[in-house]
Amino acid sequence: MKVFVIGVGLIGGSFALDLKSELDKVEIFGIDENDEHLDKALELEIIDQKAKFEDLKKADLVYLAIPVDASLEVLPKILDLVNDNCVVTDAGSTKEHLCEKVAGHPKRRNYLSGHPISGTEYSGPSAAIHGLFRNKTNIICEVEKTAFKLQEKALEIFQAIGMRIRYMDPVSHDRHIAYVSHLSHISSFMLGKTVLEKEKNERDIFDLAGSGFASTVRLAKSSPAMWTPIFSLNKKNVMETLDEYISNLKHFRKLMEEDNFEEVFNEMERTNHIREVLNGINQKEETKILENGK
Amino acid sequence: MKVFVIGVGLIGGSFALDLKSELDKVEIFGIDENDEHLDKALELEIIDQKAKFEDLKKADLVYLAIPVDASLEVLPKILDLVNDNCVVTDAGSTKEHLCEKVAGHPKRRNYLSGHPISGTEYSGPSAAIHGLFRNKTNIICEVEKTAFKLQEKALEIFQAIGMRIRYMDPVSHDRHIAYVSHLSHISSFMLGKTVLEKEKNERDIFDLAGSGFASTVRLAKSSPAMWTPIFSLNKKNVMETLDEYISNLKHFRKLMEEDNFEEVFNEMERTNHIREVLNGINQKEETKILENGK
Repeated sequence: MKVFVIGVGLIGGSFALDLKSELDKVEIFGIDENDEHLDKALELEIIDQKAKFEDLKKADLVYLAIPVDASLEVLPKILDLVNDNCVVTDAGSTKEHLCEKVAGHPKRRNYLSGHPISGTEYSGPSAAIHGLFRNKTNIICEVEKTAFKLQEKALEIFQAIGMRIRYMDPVSHDRHIAYVSHLSHISSFMLGKTVLEKEKNERDIFDLAGSGFASTVRLAKSSPAMWTPIFSLNKKNVMETLDEYISNLKHFRKLMEEDNFEEVFNEMERTNHIREVLNGINQKEETKILENGK
Repeated sequence: MKVFVIGVGLIGGSFALDLKSELDKVEIFGIDENDEHLDKALELEIIDQKAKFEDLKKADLVYLAIPVDASLEVLPKILDLVNDNCVVTDAGSTKEHLCEKVAGHPKRRNYLSGHPISGTEYSGPSAAIHGLFRNKTNIICEVEKTAFKLQEKALEIFQAIGMRIRYMDPVSHDRHIAYVSHLSHISSFMLGKTVLEKEKNERDIFDLAGSGFASTVRLAKSSPAMWTPIFSLNKKNVMETLDEYISNLKHFRKLMEEDNFEEVFNEMERTNHIREVLNGINQKEETKILENGK
């Protein structure tokens, strides 16, 4: 099977690594506008060879893992080039605009719109790791618009690398993901900014930072090149979540100002319910491990 | 050595466990207003026996690890009871009020004001773990007010369980810790609240949550009983950090509203500098491991 990975960074690179270890007879071709990344991916044996867009006609599977604004330009070009039996899937964190963009494309049936809920705060081919997708969810949008045989082919591959599948329409996807992913990144970036600004005047402030702080600002290490287009393409939903978040923070501040610490306590106690939700996230993964018999 | 742990929860319990494994001839006495916690601590062999306040006269070391508002009431009573060779130290997350409270106490020299930068989001004796303090910082305030021999005795014990020491005045401590710890907890609680509120109307939203979300809201699992008095006693500093955080979030929102995504990119890129800070936090720990030859 000839697999073309477009964007050999954290996500594309990890996908390539898992395909090579979980499937037989896989040949990985890498395409990336950054030639240093391609060289690095070759050196790390993430890809078997470099390729060009015109080579896409021989692809059996194309995995598109570049920033979402670039995907908007590149996806139609890929569809123009691939053969009828090739499935093209992607890893973009927003889905509505991308699905709209190719809605009328004559090869729309070759595209399976995906979003794997997996990643780390690092980027580039050196950040690629084995097993990144194991027990993680791949959100598939508009599955009915993909040719049945190509759905089947892609799902077999996703299953081989350990992903669970969840179907969703692109509009709901973009609204929900704004809450559970995009907002977390802004809260983390702005927390990092607030503390860094303070550090300019107060030296050694980070000597007091512990694992709690590290956990809360971890996402502030994420790539601006990846996240700026996500915020731009999902602007309406992200701004809605930001408004609600800011309003909750202001309310908490007001309770403190009024010395209403009984209600401060209640606010926190009600939110402690997040424990069960987070246990749910872990349990999902454990269940999958049991299902796999591993 | 007779050690009295007052508050046999996560911090007090973990301190007891480490003392028992790292030092010889340690006898741990537990005091807690929650009798179930005392029974659990006995069962888990965190403490050797239950004790009462009047037993404190035979203590060599007292470790106070209860919510900070309760410490304000209990610390003077402890000092009233202990003998001249006993060192009393604590784990409170705010220091100014506590230091003020005992400033004029005739046994002020028996108190060493501490704050270990360690913990987890869990609480109670069942949350106590071995090695919680290893390679973590213990902030010591007003060290000069403690009798030299008692400083020495406490520092030997802290060193035995692997802590590094950092000295600071209580006012600076409370201001700095508001940024690198207290604000993180509020940002996490309010993020959890925002998403939980959304979930009421949009089911299954958490199916899309990944490790990034889990990391950012981890602190929202923390104990309201511990955190409410922290926010109350450090109100001025915490409100200042909240104001700066809200202002940064509003600015980010404004940039998005104006479609100024170039500056959205710059905001994130500047904050990426947090990487080096977080590496610094990790390096601190690694250095300590090397120093210990472990």
